[in-house]
Amino acid sequence: MELDTLDANLAAMGERHAGRALRTHVKAFKSTAMATRVAASGHPTFCCATIREVEGMAAAGLGDDLLLANEVLDARRLGTVAEAGARVTVAVDSPETIRAAVDGGVREVLIDVNVGLPRCGCDPSEAGRLADAARAAGLEVRGVMGYEGHVVGLEDRAARRAGVEAAMELLLAAHADVGGEVVSAGGTGTYDINPWATEIQAGSFLLMDTAYTQLDLPFRQALFVLGRVISVNRTHGFAVADVGLKSLGMDHRNPTIDGHRVWFCSDEHITFAPSGDTALPAVDDLIRVVPAHVDPTVARHERFMVVRGHELVDEWPIDLRHW
Amino acid sequence: MELDTLDANLAAMGERHAGRALRTHVKAFKSTAMATRVAASGHPTFCCATIREVEGMAAAGLGDDLLLANEVLDARRLGTVAEAGARVTVAVDSPETIRAAVDGGVREVLIDVNVGLPRCGCDPSEAGRLADAARAAGLEVRGVMGYEGHVVGLEDRAARRAGVEAAMELLLAAHADVGGEVVSAGGTGTYDINPWATEIQAGSFLLMDTAYTQLDLPFRQALFVLGRVISVNRTHGFAVADVGLKSLGMDHRNPTIDGHRVWFCSDEHITFAPSGDTALPAVDDLIRVVPAHVDPTVARHERFMVVRGHELVDEWPIDLRHW
Repeated sequence: MELDTLDANLAAMGERHAGRALRTHVKAFKSTAMATRVAASGHPTFCCATIREVEGMAAAGLGDDLLLANEVLDARRLGTVAEAGARVTVAVDSPETIRAAVDGGVREVLIDVNVGLPRCGCDPSEAGRLADAARAAGLEVRGVMGYEGHVVGLEDRAARRAGVEAAMELLLAAHADVGGEVVSAGGTGTYDINPWATEIQAGSFLLMDTAYTQLDLPFRQALFVLGRVISVNRTHGFAVADVGLKSLGMDHRNPTIDGHRVWFCSDEHITFAPSGDTALPAVDDLIRVVPAHVDPTVARHERFMVVRGHELVDEWPIDLRHW
Repeated sequence: MELDTLDANLAAMGERHAGRALRTHVKAFKSTAMATRVAASGHPTFCCATIREVEGMAAAGLGDDLLLANEVLDARRLGTVAEAGARVTVAVDSPETIRAAVDGGVREVLIDVNVGLPRCGCDPSEAGRLADAARAAGLEVRGVMGYEGHVVGLEDRAARRAGVEAAMELLLAAHADVGGEVVSAGGTGTYDINPWATEIQAGSFLLMDTAYTQLDLPFRQALFVLGRVISVNRTHGFAVADVGLKSLGMDHRNPTIDGHRVWFCSDEHITFAPSGDTALPAVDDLIRVVPAHVDPTVARHERFMVVRGHELVDEWPIDLRHW
């Protein structure tokens, strides 16, 4: 993981969203060491996808304002974290998740609103009623969240912007019924075209991946999986390195290797061949594999090897994995 | 993980391949507890894909005959395992990997032969020369290995059998040049149509996955990821459960859910909708998600929850993960 690139990505995001206007999404890197660096740069609020992430962040002293941007039916572990002094907010989108927050001892919630992505979130028309129910049950309703994930990847910027606007229109209508200070939304792909949100939930911008690099964003790839060439087939002109399915997130398909074409991945192998003027590598060469999707790739590893150029300057545990 | 199904799969494999004729591939389940059950049923020899797997198996007392069926350029950790008393054999396919075995203190090797899959393995015509070089360097050459992975998944059984035969013709020709007792090959998809190998390297048969269940095999799915429905969208008729990319191997695409159609997976979510007569589930319902590819799915989890029917009878650590 290239530290200078990470810092540059963080600075570029910070120029647009100062302080708490960025709620960095921990799921993209699952490391309290990296979160500490983000907090030190002036962004103390975070967003989590799992209870484990909330627990780990609080234990690392990063519990200033943690949002579990996800629904849970058993919030007792979250209640324990809040009881110990961290500020914990959880997303709710149904009577059952409101009940779970109350029963678990979580005191603050956001009403999660479906703004077009077929995933969690209540119908915008139900948001006000849910907020009333939450308040009646003794919860503090801080506002709304709604993730426009169905448009964050649109390559055409105008289409992306129109999609965000339509989604945020739904969210703001819900917010009018719900009240509260927070309108939480957005992501790396929409970080500069969502002026409606009071805070942006972005995480991928820190490490980036090949999907997001297709967009017109100022962030650069900071994460690579370093592999070693273990076999070279001169007859057929391909090579094999020791980076495979068990070290990669594969839902965005194959990773890439500069100057080569990736044929396929097996559990512990990647088979690839030179393209253009690139030479066939030699056995024992090192190669950089660029994962197509960073989040699930990170979750397969125990630590980041932090480098500046060719120098290893630190190791950061990926300590927020599992559930 | 359903224990009775696992045991039935093991018994079905054992009927065909007694004792050491099965060299169970640890990469498919990465658990010494499961390997212990396999060994106790009369199959003491194992195949590994990583050095970590070899180390863990030996440390668990399962070092009777461990094959690292993969190339490595630094074999020192393997040498340490062998020094401590386990039998360790490593695959070699080049002068560099032979040198690494010698330098690392590994004493036994198999010549890995390319039999058609574009991955590791020397050209069949080079196998004899590599064996000579290995012996000249002081190594014991136990024989050959060659994985017919390019044909294991062919749905048509006759085509699959013809593919195996062609691949094994190459492997046997190499074996004639190499010598030694071992001809190691095969996998779950070819376990009963490869009479040429002296031992079958199969692992997926224990837990199975949706890809292999397309074939005419007697093995049943034993592994599921248990999820909880966290959100239901009545307007659009879909539900969301808390099983996502970070708990699944996605290289064989989406998992399946009985009675439902899976729309897509996100980091911590699966969105799905009922098909046919199935009712929309309710928030807090449990659902069984069937991973499309078991090996990389297992590698994302810390333990197997071992069940008989609805009873939890044990927990088995997935203790051979990472490298």
